[in-house]
Amino acid sequence: MCLRKCIGVIVVLLSMAASLRPQTKTVAERLGYSADAKLLIVHADDLAVAHSVDAASFDALDKGGATSASIMVPCPWLNEVAAYAKDHPNSDLGLHLTLTSEWKIYRWSPVESKDRVTSLLDPSGYLWPETGPAAQNLKAEEAEHEIRAQVERAIAAGIHPTHLDSHMGVLFSRPDLFAAYVKVAHDYHLPFLAVRVADERAKLLSLLSEKDPIVDSIVMANTAVQAGQWKEFYGNAIKNLKPGLSEMIVHLGHDDAELQAVTIDHPDFGSAWRQRDYDFVTSPEFKKILEENHIVRVKWRDLQKFLK
Amino acid sequence: MCLRKCIGVIVVLLSMAASLRPQTKTVAERLGYSADAKLLIVHADDLAVAHSVDAASFDALDKGGATSASIMVPCPWLNEVAAYAKDHPNSDLGLHLTLTSEWKIYRWSPVESKDRVTSLLDPSGYLWPETGPAAQNLKAEEAEHEIRAQVERAIAAGIHPTHLDSHMGVLFSRPDLFAAYVKVAHDYHLPFLAVRVADERAKLLSLLSEKDPIVDSIVMANTAVQAGQWKEFYGNAIKNLKPGLSEMIVHLGHDDAELQAVTIDHPDFGSAWRQRDYDFVTSPEFKKILEENHIVRVKWRDLQKFLK
Repeated sequence: MCLRKCIGVIVVLLSMAASLRPQTKTVAERLGYSADAKLLIVHADDLAVAHSVDAASFDALDKGGATSASIMVPCPWLNEVAAYAKDHPNSDLGLHLTLTSEWKIYRWSPVESKDRVTSLLDPSGYLWPETGPAAQNLKAEEAEHEIRAQVERAIAAGIHPTHLDSHMGVLFSRPDLFAAYVKVAHDYHLPFLAVRVADERAKLLSLLSEKDPIVDSIVMANTAVQAGQWKEFYGNAIKNLKPGLSEMIVHLGHDDAELQAVTIDHPDFGSAWRQRDYDFVTSPEFKKILEENHIVRVKWRDLQKFLK
Repeated sequence: MCLRKCIGVIVVLLSMAASLRPQTKTVAERLGYSADAKLLIVHADDLAVAHSVDAASFDALDKGGATSASIMVPCPWLNEVAAYAKDHPNSDLGLHLTLTSEWKIYRWSPVESKDRVTSLLDPSGYLWPETGPAAQNLKAEEAEHEIRAQVERAIAAGIHPTHLDSHMGVLFSRPDLFAAYVKVAHDYHLPFLAVRVADERAKLLSLLSEKDPIVDSIVMANTAVQAGQWKEFYGNAIKNLKPGLSEMIVHLGHDDAELQAVTIDHPDFGSAWRQRDYDFVTSPEFKKILEENHIVRVKWRDLQKFLK
């Protein structure tokens, strides 16, 4: 669900950073690879939203199909992810900062006391269901309170986040929300998802420090991809990767009763969709395609070292 | 999980009401049955806690295995129950007022803004995990705020509750909490679970009005019942029912991946337990035992008429 309907927002948010800030080395070079290396983070979104998503994502992380993942802290299964994190201290788990609650019959509320973040609430008292109304209604200072509360709750649960990103791209939807996101990431010395594209809002990159890594491109299935074309879509995307740092964002889950109910009436990013993503990233074909295309899998944990 | 470890509390809370308040007719007579009729509410607890619980409970309600159920409003699946309630306007759904969040890796918080109900929160910001610490820490006025917020959220979701009861018996654990429970029930003109037993705290019954129905006995599986004795336990309990109003409290669910994870490390009231309850109440044997023992199944909706 991350970036649903917001891929347009995210891809136009950040522009050619290299033109705005001097950076002597690429991310690949900073990590010790050649300048033309193709680095890829394989990133599972939405951990903690449902047991089905957690189980599939843990399995993909354990098998090496996914390198990294991020957690929706306000969701009820946070402690399931905290238990996994405790048992897997080297796992690459960030926080999928969450300002929306998008499913029809399964909802959640902010971590922060509701009185302090009233602009984050829809009329029923849950987080807004879509990025649009969230972007229209959020007060930036309240969004910042909430994402700080999410970081603090994760830490209190025993999680040591390796990075931050934004569920459904809400924090990429307005300059002041993006500024809050960067501010919180800097305060906690965490790398965060920011994508390099050409756009007039490139001035926002001035918020980034020279140390902050920038992701050059995103690979993510979208609604134009037919169910039967899943492997073909990802295969082509990987073959067409350019040198630099890319992130492949996947949404993993098992197509079971729980996830079918969570995602009811919403096949996009739904239960069968997540099963297809899981099947692909845990398949031998995926491993083979990565090898054939000389893709170097990296983690946010690797990038975290830049900030120390 | 309702009344777990608290069956003792609930059964000693209320005493022989007939000795304290004049009541010319029994509940059975008020409903048009003979004075020695054996009335039984078959009540599914914990709706909204998990999809697995909802699915099993809806099925049992649809098949007539359960007559009634109650909803945990702070839990994430509230809107799934609201959708069922909308499609089944005659269903007998009350509110399982919830002041605890008892599972290990799956948690929830109050409906009310946390700042207003700080005594309801454990150190991690969720509701207390057990009745004991809840009873030790709750401020009665904050508990009242929260249960009113739960009633209001349910109504806002389109649910018309037929009755109130208390998850894990928290509202039966202290006189001031019980007083808040009765006050809220009276304010909303709803019948509520109160059990007739002999105890020194019978003075609390003075809070009840003459219209309030009292349940004469409770049937509920407990940890002394072995898995293989489930049918025998319920069969004997039904054969031994005395004239009056009884409630059989069951905890329904499917023994699937979701519910196994929700109830992890807790076989009591766990996933297999709930499957056994579901299997029993939807079995032909249950129907046969009720018929053979001339049990009259009633609903809280029937009792609601007393209050109008």
